[in-house]
Amino acid sequence: MIKAGIIGSTGYAGVELVRLLTQHKEAEVVWYGSRSYIDKKYYEVFQNMFQIVDDKCLDDNMDELAKQVDVIFTATPQGLCASLVNEDILSKVKIIDLSADFRIKDVSVYEKWYGIEHKSPQFIDEAVYGLCEINRDKVKNARLIANPGCYPTCSTLSIYPMVKEGLVDVSSIIIDAKSGTSGAGRGAKVNNLFCEVNENIKAYGVATHRHTPEIEEQLSYAAGEQVLINFTPHLIPMQRGILVTAYANLKKKVSYEEVKAAYDKYYANEKFVRVLDKDVVPETRWVEGSNYVDVNFRIDERTGRVIMMGAMDNLIKGAAGQAVQNMNIMFGLEESMGLEQIPMFP
Amino acid sequence: MIKAGIIGSTGYAGVELVRLLTQHKEAEVVWYGSRSYIDKKYYEVFQNMFQIVDDKCLDDNMDELAKQVDVIFTATPQGLCASLVNEDILSKVKIIDLSADFRIKDVSVYEKWYGIEHKSPQFIDEAVYGLCEINRDKVKNARLIANPGCYPTCSTLSIYPMVKEGLVDVSSIIIDAKSGTSGAGRGAKVNNLFCEVNENIKAYGVATHRHTPEIEEQLSYAAGEQVLINFTPHLIPMQRGILVTAYANLKKKVSYEEVKAAYDKYYANEKFVRVLDKDVVPETRWVEGSNYVDVNFRIDERTGRVIMMGAMDNLIKGAAGQAVQNMNIMFGLEESMGLEQIPMFP
Amino acid sequence: MIKAGIIGSTGYAGVELVRLLTQHKEAEVVWYGSRSYIDKKYYEVFQNMFQIVDDKCLDDNMDELAKQVDVIFTATPQGLCASLVNEDILSKVKIIDLSADFRIKDVSVYEKWYGIEHKSPQFIDEAVYGLCEINRDKVKNARLIANPGCYPTCSTLSIYPMVKEGLVDVSSIIIDAKSGTSGAGRGAKVNNLFCEVNENIKAYGVATHRHTPEIEEQLSYAAGEQVLINFTPHLIPMQRGILVTAYANLKKKVSYEEVKAAYDKYYANEKFVRVLDKDVVPETRWVEGSNYVDVNFRIDERTGRVIMMGAMDNLIKGAAGQAVQNMNIMFGLEESMGLEQIPMFP
Amino acid sequence: MIKAGIIGSTGYAGVELVRLLTQHKEAEVVWYGSRSYIDKKYYEVFQNMFQIVDDKCLDDNMDELAKQVDVIFTATPQGLCASLVNEDILSKVKIIDLSADFRIKDVSVYEKWYGIEHKSPQFIDEAVYGLCEINRDKVKNARLIANPGCYPTCSTLSIYPMVKEGLVDVSSIIIDAKSGTSGAGRGAKVNNLFCEVNENIKAYGVATHRHTPEIEEQLSYAAGEQVLINFTPHLIPMQRGILVTAYANLKKKVSYEEVKAAYDKYYANEKFVRVLDKDVVPETRWVEGSNYVDVNFRIDERTGRVIMMGAMDNLIKGAAGQAVQNMNIMFGLEESMGLEQIPMFP
Repeated sequence: MIKAGIIGSTGYAGVELVRLLTQHKEAEVVWYGSRSYIDKKYYEVFQNMFQIVDDKCLDDNMDELAKQVDVIFTATPQGLCASLVNEDILSKVKIIDLSADFRIKDVSVYEKWYGIEHKSPQFIDEAVYGLCEINRDKVKNARLIANPGCYPTCSTLSIYPMVKEGLVDVSSIIIDAKSGTSGAGRGAKVNNLFCEVNENIKAYGVATHRHTPEIEEQLSYAAGEQVLINFTPHLIPMQRGILVTAYANLKKKVSYEEVKAAYDKYYANEKFVRVLDKDVVPETRWVEGSNYVDVNFRIDERTGRVIMMGAMDNLIKGAAGQAVQNMNIMFGLEESMGLEQIPMFP
Repeated sequence: MIKAGIIGSTGYAGVELVRLLTQHKEAEVVWYGSRSYIDKKYYEVFQNMFQIVDDKCLDDNMDELAKQVDVIFTATPQGLCASLVNEDILSKVKIIDLSADFRIKDVSVYEKWYGIEHKSPQFIDEAVYGLCEINRDKVKNARLIANPGCYPTCSTLSIYPMVKEGLVDVSSIIIDAKSGTSGAGRGAKVNNLFCEVNENIKAYGVATHRHTPEIEEQLSYAAGEQVLINFTPHLIPMQRGILVTAYANLKKKVSYEEVKAAYDKYYANEKFVRVLDKDVVPETRWVEGSNYVDVNFRIDERTGRVIMMGAMDNLIKGAAGQAVQNMNIMFGLEESMGLEQIPMFP
Repeated sequence: MIKAGIIGSTGYAGVELVRLLTQHKEAEVVWYGSRSYIDKKYYEVFQNMFQIVDDKCLDDNMDELAKQVDVIFTATPQGLCASLVNEDILSKVKIIDLSADFRIKDVSVYEKWYGIEHKSPQFIDEAVYGLCEINRDKVKNARLIANPGCYPTCSTLSIYPMVKEGLVDVSSIIIDAKSGTSGAGRGAKVNNLFCEVNENIKAYGVATHRHTPEIEEQLSYAAGEQVLINFTPHLIPMQRGILVTAYANLKKKVSYEEVKAAYDKYYANEKFVRVLDKDVVPETRWVEGSNYVDVNFRIDERTGRVIMMGAMDNLIKGAAGQAVQNMNIMFGLEESMGLEQIPMFP
Repeated sequence: MIKAGIIGSTGYAGVELVRLLTQHKEAEVVWYGSRSYIDKKYYEVFQNMFQIVDDKCLDDNMDELAKQVDVIFTATPQGLCASLVNEDILSKVKIIDLSADFRIKDVSVYEKWYGIEHKSPQFIDEAVYGLCEINRDKVKNARLIANPGCYPTCSTLSIYPMVKEGLVDVSSIIIDAKSGTSGAGRGAKVNNLFCEVNENIKAYGVATHRHTPEIEEQLSYAAGEQVLINFTPHLIPMQRGILVTAYANLKKKVSYEEVKAAYDKYYANEKFVRVLDKDVVPETRWVEGSNYVDVNFRIDERTGRVIMMGAMDNLIKGAAGQAVQNMNIMFGLEESMGLEQIPMFP
């Protein structure tokens, strides 16, 4: 039985981690870290856990945690994990960091886009970017996982085959993404109140969103060259779900079958990436509550572009689910263990 | 492995049944009945099932079904199950009927409130009302289960201990209920369009809703006398969830502890009914996606009334989940098998 | 042209007041009070006002305001208006207080339910409860209006004819109310975040909500005797709208026509209270964006009760609209001036 | 007083037209056409109109209408207006067609994208595309107005200055649009049920949506050359509102001020197009209930692109409001008459 500790267990990604791990037959949560609710019963914060979890919330003591658990999940604001981790801790315990601290290899890019100093740049090289479908082999032996961001997971998986196979002009990539509001976190902000979000849609972080360099880095690896993109996220009046609609110029005329073959090449054997049938568009409702990413594409012969689409539950494949998937790989378990839930509709 | 057939598998209760049974380790769906989608792949109707269910939709042939399966679930409009069932079928297969056909023992009451003729009154006596927590023993040996309605399940469980223990004046019971829109079904009706339901609340079926006599019958058994109630359901702009707020006059002055003891007497050992802590109100978000019913009460000393509250996922404990719970009991399985999902939040 | 000042102009009731007054042809807002946003352009807080309102937010200086305006609206937390008002101010300017400070005549009841000391009890007697349809004559000459609460407005108007005409047993009144989330205000609280409110319904303030004594006081005037009620509000995932479903025992058997006549007696000539046709239920969508209250009732002969229903836009008739209606009456204008908007659907 | 008739008065655009015209001081609706509800009181379909409109719904008799009214609005499915109009009617009455029948000058393009034969191609040339801000002068003397589509209105106004001023490479334009569900109409379709739309986002009509050639035609006029675009609409779980996020390659390096000047050149004197302040993004909530289009842009120096954004109420500026604006121009009234409502928030 894997003992897991969570730092930041009372955010939306945190409570999803608790839900998934509590249902996982080879793992158990033994430390519910939450600075805001120390000594409060976890179920008093989240009544869905009533009669299921009886533990109290604890502080963020990573040194103590390293003694008690096999794996630490940090579902915390940027900078916290980097400020807590050290060699001693890493020698004792696996860390899966859901923040952005170890996702970007170039520390100056991180510091520029995030506007904070990186406190542990010495571990950046070692950290493995935990996009399981692409970096599975590296994940196996990692001590420190940089769990991918929600938008980067959905964006990269939607576009990857086209870039990797050299089918699109990488200088032309535009990603227009839409996210449910759980992605904005559980902080008490006026902007996230029901009456501010409901019956509204807006773009945010236009040309400046922090997930931009993360996506660019991953696509650059796939392309074998430097990729710059436009990335525009939007806030949608729903709780869960990310939809990515991406555009790129095709390098040459290709058929549906050729592009389909490119997607199948990478995803035919992937349980959690479903390449949909022709002309079926990804919709967030069909993946909600699951670890699936549904992807598809459409060729527009009039303009010579391909439209690539992906849908995902931002709290699962975009956060807690992928974290568990990484844990499974790291500990030699069945990769889908604890992640078998069928999407819930309606 | 229990072989299950579903008649009406493409409604909201039907697709939830499919989801639950597909995740059930001792059952499998072998017949996806759906008059509207015959010969269409099930996943083409519900893309969440893509790469999970590969079967095609079939017709509603209950005779053929009786040969192939161990249990038939009918998630169909009122009257259909009663028109299909017969002794030959019942001798071969268990039936769990999610419609109202066999819920009401007095056929004249059924025919009056539902406005249709009952085609199989000879099976009404035999049918067991499948409110598991109350009728568990009878369910065990039943051939035909009348799976309770969504409102009656939540209403009855919220009020039952007070009536059974004789704490309230049963002539004073008023039930004000609120339901998400999945309870209205998947029919293409203007009234259920997004733009008609969203940003709206209304009562419906005021003083005439068909679930009224069903609740009255169950409460009458508990009271040992004839109970008449007011029942007012409301339509809420959300997908899943029922909340019941019920009012009754206390027969005498009682303390919180006395009432709590009454609830605990019936529910302390029930996995799926959670009596919440003092002053914690049931909320639908804390049970969504699960088979739980959360109940609680508050005594109002000023008026001498008790307010009884219950929250439930209408598609699970109010329909498909309770049906699976009944199946588990009938087949001697662990009662909670396949129903262990923790409520999903947010 | 009436010069109006608003203290608390950046809450949800405040911004609605600004919208209504800006469209009012005999009034103009000259003071946008908002402690939180002093010196910020009003349209920077509410971009709907861009190119419409160019003023900056000011502080809550009621003495200064009294010199500059004809009427002050206080859309502020409980206690603030009572702490600011004095005879000098009241001698110069009319005050319409949207808080609860002057709604309850018995100061001890106010202090018990609100848990704060009343700072100006000397003005309670003078203050007129501004439920226009009932207290119109008193409003005309008032200096200080206690603008009714949202729930009390909808509850009282829904029940008033039945109580006034002595048709119901006033000891049996139960009010089950449901409100959109704008009623919870614009404060940055976790409980009001989109992901906490959406896809959820819950009761709150069960048996303890502060609007209870306000409703009881108004119904007691109508009944000519002390009335105690049960009042249970619920939070609904929508922005605007209150629905009241109220229950009472009929004193004797009455026909639809008799009850209809009672409602018509009080409302046939009221522009803003619409008694719906037989069997048509009030729905919040049909009043949204307007000052209307739609009411109706249904007699349940089985139980001897009447179900009384009302729907209203909580920010208009339940707050800002009724405040403007009161202003119109006080200043001798057409009562409906600036309140002619037709409900907006969808 | 202008007498107006509406064919298709019980769709979402139709009821919005009724609302706007009823509040218009120089117009009145005298014919409520609705095939589906003939002889039913209009307020029985839309209870918001109770005690406001007392007329019954009538049939679609355009010949009879031409005798009785000054202007006919057709808010009907594609093809209907073209099948009804003739020279005799046009000689008697102005027609404002909210369908697509007369928007596209090349009848073969219309017939290809809409898949129907055009029944009155002889009037296409004469018809004026009623995008008021751009074609105001032509609208003045028109007999037949092709009222623009919702997406084309928002898209064209968001992009127009950049194309007209030659600042962008027109071969690079990509429009990613998002719409509330009222744009899908009031037909009883499973796809538009609350439970299908809520908590979901999807693209639709990818590379094939009918508004594509309409946008292309308008941008081609502005560019002075043939423009092909990618246009991808998405369905959002909200009622009203369209957001456009458009991308194009800048022809050369430009400053914020230069681009701002281009927008101001066309919109500084336009009441209904608001160019927002620097870095303020358009949001649908700030225009809901009004005729405004809020636009803004952001230059991305990293990629050499400009992101152009626009937000609008699809039922007002995208349909009924723009139709009234056209009527005002055609009849020599103040252009904003009846369209002065301030956006309603929340």
